[in-house]
Amino acid sequence: MCHRQQAEVTAMNNLFSNIPDDLPGELLETLLDAEAIRFERIVSHGHASPEGFWYDQQQQEWVIVLKGAARLQFEGDDDVLEMKPGDYVNIPAHKRHRVEWTIPDAPTVWLAVHYG
Amino acid sequence: MCHRQQAEVTAMNNLFSNIPDDLPGELLETLLDAEAIRFERIVSHGHASPEGFWYDQQQQEWVIVLKGAARLQFEGDDDVLEMKPGDYVNIPAHKRHRVEWTIPDAPTVWLAVHYG
Repeated sequence: MCHRQQAEVTAMNNLFSNIPDDLPGELLETLLDAEAIRFERIVSHGHASPEGFWYDQQQQEWVIVLKGAARLQFEGDDDVLEMKPGDYVNIPAHKRHRVEWTIPDAPTVWLAVHYG
Repeated sequence: MCHRQQAEVTAMNNLFSNIPDDLPGELLETLLDAEAIRFERIVSHGHASPEGFWYDQQQQEWVIVLKGAARLQFEGDDDVLEMKPGDYVNIPAHKRHRVEWTIPDAPTVWLAVHYG
């Protein structure tokens, strides 16, 4: 007889837990790294990308703000994207972007999914 | 000269917006359907899976509760997983599971990512 081996459920975790009070830099944690897909939690606390720095990524990124507030900037676009909790965007591969601002007085919690 | 055509950023949307007051059934919306990956928002309002029904999915599912509260049950497991906002789990393909309960007096908002 053949029983299919069932993979186990990953232990449950909480996206809003274990946020340090003191964050000298952005906190980036990989939540799951599977073939061609990576889940990340990012916690910002007033952090922004360095002036003139642009992310230029090989993969697509689906990103949502779950707490706090942020402004996302795309190269060649005068407007910034004001993001509040629940707001999400899909950023195509090689679409250059940077975090222009995050709210200074509270943590901003992002969930980012890199794929494709 | 060759300019690479840059794909456009999907218009921003909000995961917590447009939740109808009256939900006769669960609300399931596909947020993004790309090759081998699908993002869904699910809104439950006291809904549960029918008694004896089990989800048995071809793909893996990474799922997070963002509002409300839910209980997730896995076949052959006596314990249920109590999920509150921020709690996430990764459900392997063909791991049979059902939603045993969602809080009756408020919407429960899930984000589900099907992949692999």
